[in-house]
Amino acid sequence: MRVGVLGGGQLARMLAIAGERIGVATTCLDPAPDACAGQVAKHICAAWDDPGALDALAAASDVVTFEFENVPPASLERLAPRVTVRPSAEALRVSADRLAEKNLFRALGSRTAEFAAIAQPSDADSAARAVGAPAILKTRHSGYDGKGQRRIGDAGELASAWRAAGSVPCILEAMVPFRREVSIIAVRGLDGALAFYPLSENTHRDGILHIAVSRPGDPLQAPAEAVATRLMEKLGYVGVLAIEFFDVDGELLVNEFAPRVHNSGHWSIEGAETSQFENHLRAVLGMPLGSTAPTGCAAMVNFVGQMPDAAEVLRLPGARLHAYGKAPRPGRKLGHATVLDSDPARCGQLAAQLAGLA
Amino acid sequence: MRVGVLGGGQLARMLAIAGERIGVATTCLDPAPDACAGQVAKHICAAWDDPGALDALAAASDVVTFEFENVPPASLERLAPRVTVRPSAEALRVSADRLAEKNLFRALGSRTAEFAAIAQPSDADSAARAVGAPAILKTRHSGYDGKGQRRIGDAGELASAWRAAGSVPCILEAMVPFRREVSIIAVRGLDGALAFYPLSENTHRDGILHIAVSRPGDPLQAPAEAVATRLMEKLGYVGVLAIEFFDVDGELLVNEFAPRVHNSGHWSIEGAETSQFENHLRAVLGMPLGSTAPTGCAAMVNFVGQMPDAAEVLRLPGARLHAYGKAPRPGRKLGHATVLDSDPARCGQLAAQLAGLA
Repeated sequence: MRVGVLGGGQLARMLAIAGERIGVATTCLDPAPDACAGQVAKHICAAWDDPGALDALAAASDVVTFEFENVPPASLERLAPRVTVRPSAEALRVSADRLAEKNLFRALGSRTAEFAAIAQPSDADSAARAVGAPAILKTRHSGYDGKGQRRIGDAGELASAWRAAGSVPCILEAMVPFRREVSIIAVRGLDGALAFYPLSENTHRDGILHIAVSRPGDPLQAPAEAVATRLMEKLGYVGVLAIEFFDVDGELLVNEFAPRVHNSGHWSIEGAETSQFENHLRAVLGMPLGSTAPTGCAAMVNFVGQMPDAAEVLRLPGARLHAYGKAPRPGRKLGHATVLDSDPARCGQLAAQLAGLA
Repeated sequence: MRVGVLGGGQLARMLAIAGERIGVATTCLDPAPDACAGQVAKHICAAWDDPGALDALAAASDVVTFEFENVPPASLERLAPRVTVRPSAEALRVSADRLAEKNLFRALGSRTAEFAAIAQPSDADSAARAVGAPAILKTRHSGYDGKGQRRIGDAGELASAWRAAGSVPCILEAMVPFRREVSIIAVRGLDGALAFYPLSENTHRDGILHIAVSRPGDPLQAPAEAVATRLMEKLGYVGVLAIEFFDVDGELLVNEFAPRVHNSGHWSIEGAETSQFENHLRAVLGMPLGSTAPTGCAAMVNFVGQMPDAAEVLRLPGARLHAYGKAPRPGRKLGHATVLDSDPARCGQLAAQLAGLA
């Protein structure tokens, strides 16, 4: 079995490592010569839209998938007649456009924050009236890890903020007084089988995920699964996806979804019977899905900008270290570690110790 | 951190996969162009004793280890001045010689089956008298997976069996009426720290390990740990080793040891908090050892000669498939799968289902 991945970062790397165990050979395409997945998988080093490279990826793969949602449409068009691509181009298209994404969730009956589109200067006033302040101005396309976002404290700031954002298509989104941020990692097989991981409770630092804690038995598990089910069935989705939510007084507001494996599901490598990476491979290859049952409470801490001393992490009881083989750089995700415990309180203590090393 | 491995089979492959997660880059040396570890690690394809290849391995590695015990002494001599090798040459020397191995266990106060050395034709009579019949004639060197062994039903067969074995140095070993075969996987860190996995209970088919089941809480755990402790401390051992025993009416007789990760410890990938592969890397790199605590009862089934249908294995609840990426060939270990359950009886049922697919 051979899987191709558009992208050669840590998500592709962890897909490749999961594949090695079950006999899946991975080839990634990434323009960066030092793409970290290239250390563990075959690496085609070329531009995203290089026709020859895309043909080589198709030839090396039974199925092609991706580790990021902003795949150039031209790349998908080149691949489509040559190899099966999963998840579908439609899932990519929706998730890469905040407006289409929010409209789809609304159409599926899921709650989101109030929002309005801004495509031209004259949209600013009506958007500000509809959404109120404070609010967040987000570019419709190409945003991740807090990039492409600006906080609007007052309606008067909106026009200049939009110009500062390059006057590209944006949405203005109401700031939500959330209690916590949670995400669900879900997977749908080629046969339509569905499986869901326990909710992950996520905290961010500088706009980047810092800690994700699994919450088996969370009271919002069922409503989150319902949102994911409607989305995956609507899209005919095959593979793993992640949906991020705000928990507002015990009610879920959808924030966004990612049509891929997701940082908030890294704890599933040790904290679930089958990791999100293996289940994504199983799904896109048309294999039976693996159990997503938790093996305990798990907490993951991201290492951003620099790695802690490996020996210090390994000395923490039960800590599982993951190093992505990337050169340090401010704001760059270099690795993570996961702690596990049957008791959520002890798991939280271990996570705090781990975060102290990060 | 960079580790070199002499050998590029499935043990090197699983070491490399364990290393990828924690940021250890692996280079293996193996003369086979299709060595399966080469799919997941750098591969130097050259003869075991090729001086240039050994120098390249040393240059690519902070420490060199091995996946088999019959490393040519010339290779070790070439490596020794250039790079740290762990475990030590002394551990290799003893384990590669059944006579030295048995004598060492006896000197350490551990019981073994009765045995006698045969180096020349005139040794046959006294050996037969000392050991009795039935017995097993084993070559002193180069035996594994039942190779180099002949069953002797009667003392009169010994001389011709020895000639059939090529008249090489042998030992004659009494056949032991064992209740079961068990092994212990142990690890010793650079700082002398010791850790032990739960005993593994092993059944063989055609001389090759077929099923290994973890036995947390086995009454023979403590005596097995005592044997391993004496051996590792005597040898100043660093890394993982395996000792195989016969359980004869509740008493342990040492069979042999392997100075490396071992097939009977593959269940530790899922059945223990830290796998034997990660702990071997941690030990030889001078890192703190990880917990060897069991995560439940685990059972591993080897796939020999041909792989089962992957989808059928993945459909079994909780089965974890491992495929080594090797071409099928009779008698060749191609992969394994592990099942886990908190209840030993249910674990046994799952193992039986798995064995039905093998």
